[in-house]
Amino acid sequence: MGRVTIADVAKRAGVSLASTSRALNGQVASAATVEKVRAAAAELGYIPDSAARSLRTRRTGQLAFAVADIGNPVYVEMMREIESVVAAEDYRLVVSRTGDADATVDLVRDLNRGYVDGLILSPLRVTDALVTALEASTVPAVVIGRLPDGAGVDTVMADSEGGVALAVEHLVTGGARRIAFLNGPADTTPGRFRHAGFLRAVAERNDLVSAEYSAEDFTIEAGYAAASAMFDSAEDPWDAVIAVNDLVGIGIMHAAATRGLTVPTDLAVVGIDNTSLTEVSHPGLTSVDLGSTRRGRKAAQLLLARMEDPELAPRAVRVPPSLQVRGSTTAQPSSVSRFASGEGRPR
Amino acid sequence: MGRVTIADVAKRAGVSLASTSRALNGQVASAATVEKVRAAAAELGYIPDSAARSLRTRRTGQLAFAVADIGNPVYVEMMREIESVVAAEDYRLVVSRTGDADATVDLVRDLNRGYVDGLILSPLRVTDALVTALEASTVPAVVIGRLPDGAGVDTVMADSEGGVALAVEHLVTGGARRIAFLNGPADTTPGRFRHAGFLRAVAERNDLVSAEYSAEDFTIEAGYAAASAMFDSAEDPWDAVIAVNDLVGIGIMHAAATRGLTVPTDLAVVGIDNTSLTEVSHPGLTSVDLGSTRRGRKAAQLLLARMEDPELAPRAVRVPPSLQVRGSTTAQPSSVSRFASGEGRPR
Repeated sequence: MGRVTIADVAKRAGVSLASTSRALNGQVASAATVEKVRAAAAELGYIPDSAARSLRTRRTGQLAFAVADIGNPVYVEMMREIESVVAAEDYRLVVSRTGDADATVDLVRDLNRGYVDGLILSPLRVTDALVTALEASTVPAVVIGRLPDGAGVDTVMADSEGGVALAVEHLVTGGARRIAFLNGPADTTPGRFRHAGFLRAVAERNDLVSAEYSAEDFTIEAGYAAASAMFDSAEDPWDAVIAVNDLVGIGIMHAAATRGLTVPTDLAVVGIDNTSLTEVSHPGLTSVDLGSTRRGRKAAQLLLARMEDPELAPRAVRVPPSLQVRGSTTAQPSSVSRFASGEGRPR
Repeated sequence: MGRVTIADVAKRAGVSLASTSRALNGQVASAATVEKVRAAAAELGYIPDSAARSLRTRRTGQLAFAVADIGNPVYVEMMREIESVVAAEDYRLVVSRTGDADATVDLVRDLNRGYVDGLILSPLRVTDALVTALEASTVPAVVIGRLPDGAGVDTVMADSEGGVALAVEHLVTGGARRIAFLNGPADTTPGRFRHAGFLRAVAERNDLVSAEYSAEDFTIEAGYAAASAMFDSAEDPWDAVIAVNDLVGIGIMHAAATRGLTVPTDLAVVGIDNTSLTEVSHPGLTSVDLGSTRRGRKAAQLLLARMEDPELAPRAVRVPPSLQVRGSTTAQPSSVSRFASGEGRPR
C-alpha cells in the first residue's frame, strides 16, 4: 500500500472527503464525525501530507517568529514587517526566543506538535542538528540567515560583507586610516560574516591600519566593556570603529564619552542594522542597513508561498545593503531630527 | 449524573487512569489507547476540569505573554523577567501583540484552542467583553493592568498615581513651577491612570501652573509631534514636562533639541517606565520606575500558582513605584555611565 491519503481516511471512516478534511483540521464537524475520522486515520497510520497542507488548511491561524533577542530592535523591526504581511492573510504572529543551539532544535522539533502553522527562524548559530530538524519538519519553516549549501529550506540572507565594505569605504572617504572592528561572538552567523566582510574590505586597501576586537555579546553593555578594553589596549588611538551591530555601537559611544572622547571628531563610530536606536543616541549613529525590514517581508512571503505549495523548490533570497550616514561619522550631520520630517522610524 | 470525571472516562474506555491521563494530555500513549480514550471522552462529554488541570499536566509546555507593542522596551524587560521565572519550570514563553480591543478578546478566546497552557496579558484597553472572555477562559490568565473591581482574574497593578507624584515632587524640589504633562491616548489604562496621577499631584499644591497635552500614540514619533505642537502653543515656556512613557519623553527631547532648547536647563523632562532607553538618550532621561520587572515576576508567579491550583481566590498585587534621576532633570548628573559600574541595564 502506498502513502495513506486523506481519501483513504474518508473511505475508511465512511464520511465525505470534505467532512474528513474539516475533522482532521479542527474545523466545524460533529463529534461523531471527528471520532470516526480520527479512528480511521489512526488505524491507517495517516500523516497529513504535503497535498493536505497545500489545501492551506489552518490548524491554528498562528505563525511563529523565533529570534535570539527580542530586545534587539532589529528583530522588532523585522517582526513588524512580518506581521504586516501575514496579518493580511489573517494569521496571528507569535514571537519566541531561540535560546541556545539545543533549544533552537527543540523549538523546531516542537513545531510538529502543531501549535503554529509555520515558522520564520533567525538563528544566531546553525548546527547540523538544526538543519536536520528543519528539513524533517512537517510544518513549513523559513530561515533568515545562512544555511549550508544544499539545505532544503527557504532562506533569506543579508549581504553582510557588502554592507561592511560600504562602511569602510565611507570611513576612508572621510579620512580614516586606522579602523577597528568590534565583533560580537565570532561563532555566530552575524559574527562570522560581518567580521569576514571587514577583513576583506581592509585587505583590498594598502593604506589602512586595522585590528579586530570582540565583545562577549551583541548588547550595549558588552559593547561598552569591550570598547573600554580596546581604548586601554591601543597604542595609537583609532580613527574609527565599526561595531558588529547598533547596540554594540552605542556601547562604544558611551565608553568614548566616559573617556572624554568626542564622536565623531576623536572617534567615528559605525553600527550595523540601522535600527531605530541610531536615532535615539547622541549624535545619531551612522549604520549599515542590512535590509532587516525587507528580509522580514521576504521571509513572510516565502513562508506563505511555501504553505500554499509545499512542493516548491527551496529558494534563497539575498537582500542588498545600504549605508545611512548620521552624526557619529560626520561633524556636519543634518541638524534636523528625522522625526521632524515625518519620515518616522524605519519600518 | 454529576460532572464527568477522568475516572469515568478511564472506566468507559477500559484503560487505566494513568493511561487515560496521558492520552488526554498528549503524552506518550499507544494510538489504540488514545482512540479509546478520546471516544470515551467524546461519548461522555468529558471536559478537563480544574482538578485535572491541577495535576499540572502540560498540554503544550508553552505560556504566552501578550502586549500592545513588542517594540516598547518596557514590555521586553517584563518579558525577560517572566521568561526567567517560567523557564525555571521548563515552560517556553511566546509573545504576541494584543492588537485592538476586539483582537485582544479573540486572543483570549483562542486560548481555549489549547496552543498554550497559560497567558499573561497586558492590555492597553479593558472592555467588558475582555473581562468576560478572561473569566470564561479555561486556560489560566493573569492580567498586568487594571480590571474592574470584582473581576475574577489575577491582576498585577502599577501605582501610576504614586509614581507621577514622585516625578512632580522631584521637579518642584528642583525649582520647577510650570509643569506640563504629555499624555498618550487617554482611553487607555496607562493614559487614564498616569494622567489622573498628574492631576492629583498638581492639585495638592497652590504654587504650580500646569497643563496637559496629548500624543496620538505611545511612541517617539508621536511624542515628537505632540511636543512640537506644545512648544508652538505655550504662551510662556514650561519649566518641565512629564511624559506618559520613556518613548514619548525621548520624542520631547528630540523636539526640544530641534528648537535649540537645552535639556535640562531650558526644559526638564521626565519619562515613565525607566526602560533601558533612558540610558541611550543624551542626556539620560529621568524616569518613574513603575516596577516593570517586578510586575513581570509577580505575574509569572501568580500564573504558575494558578496553574497549580485553579481554585485559588483571585488575587490583586500592587507594585510600588520609585524614581530614577538622570541628566534630563538635573544639570549635575553623575558623569559616569551606568554601563561603567557593571550594573548593566535594568533586568
